[in-house]
Amino acid sequence: MDYVTVRNITKKPKLENPLFIEGLPGIGNVGKLAVEHLVDSVKASKFAELYCKDFPPQVFINSDGTTELVKNEFYYWKAKKKNQRDLVLLTGDYQGLSSQGQYELVEKILDIVEDIGVKEMFTLGGYGLGHEIKNPKVLCATTDKHLVKKMKKYGAIFRKNEPGGGIVGASGLLLGLGKLRGFEGTCFMGETPGYLVDPKSAKAVLKILMKITNVDVNLSALEEKAKEIEQIAQQLREIEGTSLDKTEDLKYIG
Amino acid sequence: MDYVTVRNITKKPKLENPLFIEGLPGIGNVGKLAVEHLVDSVKASKFAELYCKDFPPQVFINSDGTTELVKNEFYYWKAKKKNQRDLVLLTGDYQGLSSQGQYELVEKILDIVEDIGVKEMFTLGGYGLGHEIKNPKVLCATTDKHLVKKMKKYGAIFRKNEPGGGIVGASGLLLGLGKLRGFEGTCFMGETPGYLVDPKSAKAVLKILMKITNVDVNLSALEEKAKEIEQIAQQLREIEGTSLDKTEDLKYIG
Amino acid sequence: MDYVTVRNITKKPKLENPLFIEGLPGIGNVGKLAVEHLVDSVKASKFAELYCKDFPPQVFINSDGTTELVKNEFYYWKAKKKNQRDLVLLTGDYQGLSSQGQYELVEKILDIVEDIGVKEMFTLGGYGLGHEIKNPKVLCATTDKHLVKKMKKYGAIFRKNEPGGGIVGASGLLLGLGKLRGFEGTCFMGETPGYLVDPKSAKAVLKILMKITNVDVNLSALEEKAKEIEQIAQQLREIEGTSLDKTEDLKYIG
Amino acid sequence: MDYVTVRNITKKPKLENPLFIEGLPGIGNVGKLAVEHLVDSVKASKFAELYCKDFPPQVFINSDGTTELVKNEFYYWKAKKKNQRDLVLLTGDYQGLSSQGQYELVEKILDIVEDIGVKEMFTLGGYGLGHEIKNPKVLCATTDKHLVKKMKKYGAIFRKNEPGGGIVGASGLLLGLGKLRGFEGTCFMGETPGYLVDPKSAKAVLKILMKITNVDVNLSALEEKAKEIEQIAQQLREIEGTSLDKTEDLKYIG
Repeated sequence: MDYVTVRNITKKPKLENPLFIEGLPGIGNVGKLAVEHLVDSVKASKFAELYCKDFPPQVFINSDGTTELVKNEFYYWKAKKKNQRDLVLLTGDYQGLSSQGQYELVEKILDIVEDIGVKEMFTLGGYGLGHEIKNPKVLCATTDKHLVKKMKKYGAIFRKNEPGGGIVGASGLLLGLGKLRGFEGTCFMGETPGYLVDPKSAKAVLKILMKITNVDVNLSALEEKAKEIEQIAQQLREIEGTSLDKTEDLKYIG
Repeated sequence: MDYVTVRNITKKPKLENPLFIEGLPGIGNVGKLAVEHLVDSVKASKFAELYCKDFPPQVFINSDGTTELVKNEFYYWKAKKKNQRDLVLLTGDYQGLSSQGQYELVEKILDIVEDIGVKEMFTLGGYGLGHEIKNPKVLCATTDKHLVKKMKKYGAIFRKNEPGGGIVGASGLLLGLGKLRGFEGTCFMGETPGYLVDPKSAKAVLKILMKITNVDVNLSALEEKAKEIEQIAQQLREIEGTSLDKTEDLKYIG
Repeated sequence: MDYVTVRNITKKPKLENPLFIEGLPGIGNVGKLAVEHLVDSVKASKFAELYCKDFPPQVFINSDGTTELVKNEFYYWKAKKKNQRDLVLLTGDYQGLSSQGQYELVEKILDIVEDIGVKEMFTLGGYGLGHEIKNPKVLCATTDKHLVKKMKKYGAIFRKNEPGGGIVGASGLLLGLGKLRGFEGTCFMGETPGYLVDPKSAKAVLKILMKITNVDVNLSALEEKAKEIEQIAQQLREIEGTSLDKTEDLKYIG
Repeated sequence: MDYVTVRNITKKPKLENPLFIEGLPGIGNVGKLAVEHLVDSVKASKFAELYCKDFPPQVFINSDGTTELVKNEFYYWKAKKKNQRDLVLLTGDYQGLSSQGQYELVEKILDIVEDIGVKEMFTLGGYGLGHEIKNPKVLCATTDKHLVKKMKKYGAIFRKNEPGGGIVGASGLLLGLGKLRGFEGTCFMGETPGYLVDPKSAKAVLKILMKITNVDVNLSALEEKAKEIEQIAQQLREIEGTSLDKTEDLKYIG
C-alpha cells in the first residue's frame, strides 16, 4: 500500500469534458452532504476508492455487521441531455489528518481527475458563522477572476475579506494546487452555524450547482434531514438554555 | 533498521491453513490479555519480533534488571487434534503511535502472516462502555456478511450501530487492510468499563475463541487476575466514593 | 509536487554578489513587515515562489475573489548606485509547521540563494519582550565574530544571554545551516511587545538595513501602519483595563 | 543535509576497545551534566557533530554573539594509564523530538560508535522521584544479566520494578537498539527530584563511573554548581512556601 492508494472499482470511465465536484467532510459537513445527495439522486457510479496512511487507522461498521476501511470515493455520471455535462464526484469519510497528508491526497485526487479529462472543478464546503442563520447564502472564491462574475450570476455571493482565514482543507487546496496545473475551479461555501451537520446549507449549495449543471436533483431527502436537524437544534436550545451563539475555531471549511 | 523491522527468532514455521489471532494493547487491554493468556496456556513458540520507529523510544526493565526494547511478538502453535487448526498469535507492548505508523505496522503484520499461509483472522479488543458491567458480552464485526451469522452461533453478538465510531486501531485496520488482500476476518470486542485492565472481559472473548478453535484454555490464571482487579476496583470505589460511571474517549478498541 | 516545490516566475536573475534578506512571519511579524515594505518601496521583482507540504493546506482569498495557495516568495533588486549591492528578498505566508519542515524549507531556500551567488545574508525577526516599549532596539546575532562588531557600528546592539532561548525558526536556521555552507549571516531582532503586528519595530530594523545597504526606503507607509496599530493597542488597553504586560511563549523569533 | 547529518571535526580517532558514555538532556539534566563535566575534566577532544531534522529549528547564541546550530557532540579521550580504557563521549543540546527521530538518531549514533570499535556503553540519565532526596542513589539496568551483578559491585543499585515505566529516550533506546547489534550496555539513573538541573545527582553517577573507568575526575566544579542549585531550591521553597513535593510526568529518563 502506498501513502495514498487507488483501488479501481471499474475500468477508467470515458468522459467528455467532465466537471469535477468535491464534497469531503468539513464544517457542518456541508460539502459531504451535498455530494452524497447528488450521488444518490442521479445514481452516479462508483469507479474508484482512495485509501491513505494519513486517514485514521479505522474501519466503520455497516448495518449488516461488515467492516469498511475508511476511504474517499470517486463517482461518475454521464450527461443525459445536451445542456448537461459529464460529472466526476468525490466524497468520503475523512480528509487527511496532517498538512502533508492533505497535500499528498489532493495531488493524488488531481492526478486521477486530470487523467479522465477534468479541467474545471467545484469544491464544496461550509462557512462557519458561529451563529444561527435563517437563509444561508453561498459564498464563492475562484481560481480566476472571470469566474467570480460568472458565479454571481448563478446566485453565489462574494464578500471581500470573507472568509478572512481563506479556505483550509481539501476544498481550498484543490483550487490552489489545481491552478498550478491549469485547472479552473470555484469553491462554494454554504453559510452554516457550524455546530451540527447542516442539510439546509447543503441544499443552498446544491441549488446553485443545479443551475450551473442543468442537473435536476430531488431535494426532498435533504429537506427531510434538515427538518430532523432543526428539531435536534431546537431540543438543544431548550435543554441547554443556550442560543448556541458562541463558538471557536469554526473557520475550517472542508 | 527499517521503519518496521522484523527479527526472526526461529526459522519460518511450516503451518497448515493457520488461523491468525491478534491481541495488542487497547481499551481494558482485553485483546492483549486474551492473547497473552492463550500463548501461556498452549505454550506457543515465539518465532518473530517486530520493532517499529513509531513505537515510543523506550525499553522496559525485566525482573532480573535487563532491558527489553518495546516490540510486538509473533507466536505459533501446531494443532494437536484433528478438529483443531494451527494458530499464529500476535501480542506486544504497543500499537503504532501515529496514523501512518499504524498503517505501516499492520501492512507488515499482514505481510508476515500472509507469508506463512494465513487466510483467516480474529482480532481482539475491548468495547469501552464507560460503566461497570456484570456479564460482559462479546460484540463482533466481520469482513464478510456470512461470518456475522457464523459468529453469532459461537455466542458473539451484533448490535446495529455499535460501536458507533467503528473500530480504531490495529484490530480494525487488520480487517480493513486484510480484506483488500482477500483475508477473511472477525473482530471480537469484549464489553468492558474501560477504566482498568479487564481480565473478565478477556475471559469472555477467550471462551468464544475456545469454541471456534476447539483449543482448551485453562482460564484459572485469568480468573485469578479478574478477582484481583475486582478488589482494586472495589477499593477505588470506596476511596473515591465514586461509581466510576463517567468517562470519555473510551471508544478506542485496539 | 515535491515536499518543497520551486515555481520560477522569471528566469534566474543575474546578480552580482547579492545580499540576501529574509523576513518571514514570526513574533510581531517584524521580519515580514520589514521585507514586504522593502519589496514595495524599491519595487523589487518576484522571480520565484515556494510551495511546501509542511505549510497549512490552505488558500487565501484576494480582494478580487481569486484564491492564492499559501507560499513563500523570492524577489530581487538590482543596485542603482555604486555603493549599493544587488538584493535578494524573501517573504511569505508561513514558515514550516514542523521541525523537519523548517529544516527542509531552509535547505531549499539556501539552495536557491546559493545558486544565484549569495554569500551573505540578513535574517529579520522580532524579539518578544512581553511588555510595551517606547523605542525598540535592534539586537543582533551573527555567524562570525567579526560581524558582531561591524553590526554594532550600524546601530544594532548585542546583549549577552539575549535572547536566552536562542533564535527559533527560519531566521535562526538560515544562519545555522547557512554557516555550514560557508555563508556569513546576521540576524536582526527588533524588540517588540509581541502582542500585535509591530510596524514600529520593523521600522527600527529597516533603518539599520538602510545604513548597511545604502538603499533609501520610504518609511512613511510603515509609520502610518504603526500609528494605526498604536491606536488599536490604546483601545485594547482601555477596553480590557489591562496593560497587556503578561505574556508567555513569546520567544519565537521568526 | 540528511535527516541526521554527521559533520566530522577531526579525522576518525583510532581507539582501542573504547567505552562509550552518553549523556544527553533529560530529567534533571543528570546525564548531560555528568558527561559535560567529564569532557571538561579530562579535556576530551571533539571529533564529530550531529545535526538532525528532528531537533528544533533553532540556534543558540554564544557569549560572543555568534550563533550555534543545535546539535549533538562526540568527544574522545585516550587512556593514560594501563588500568584505563579509551573513552567516546556523547552530549548535546537535544534528543530527537519525535519517536521516529529518536530511533533515527540513536541508529546513527550506534553507527558512529560501532565504526570506531565500541562494544560496551554506559548511558546516563536521571530517575525522577518527584520529591527531594538527600543522598541520591544510582539505579542501573543492563543489556545482559551478568552486568547487573557487576554494576552492583561498583555501587549502583537495582530495585525490582523501578523505574516502572522503563527507560524512555536515548538512554533506553541505545541499550535496546545496541543490544540488537551485540553491544553490552548499562544505564545509570541518578535519583533526582526532577524539578531543576541536578549536579548532585550527576556527581553520584560520575563517582560510579570513576570506579569503573579508573579515570580521576575533579568534582569540585560540579559541587560548586550543586551548591548554587541548592540555594535556588531553598529560595523557591521559601518564596512559594511549597515543599515542591508534587509533580507529574517525571518518568522521562534521558
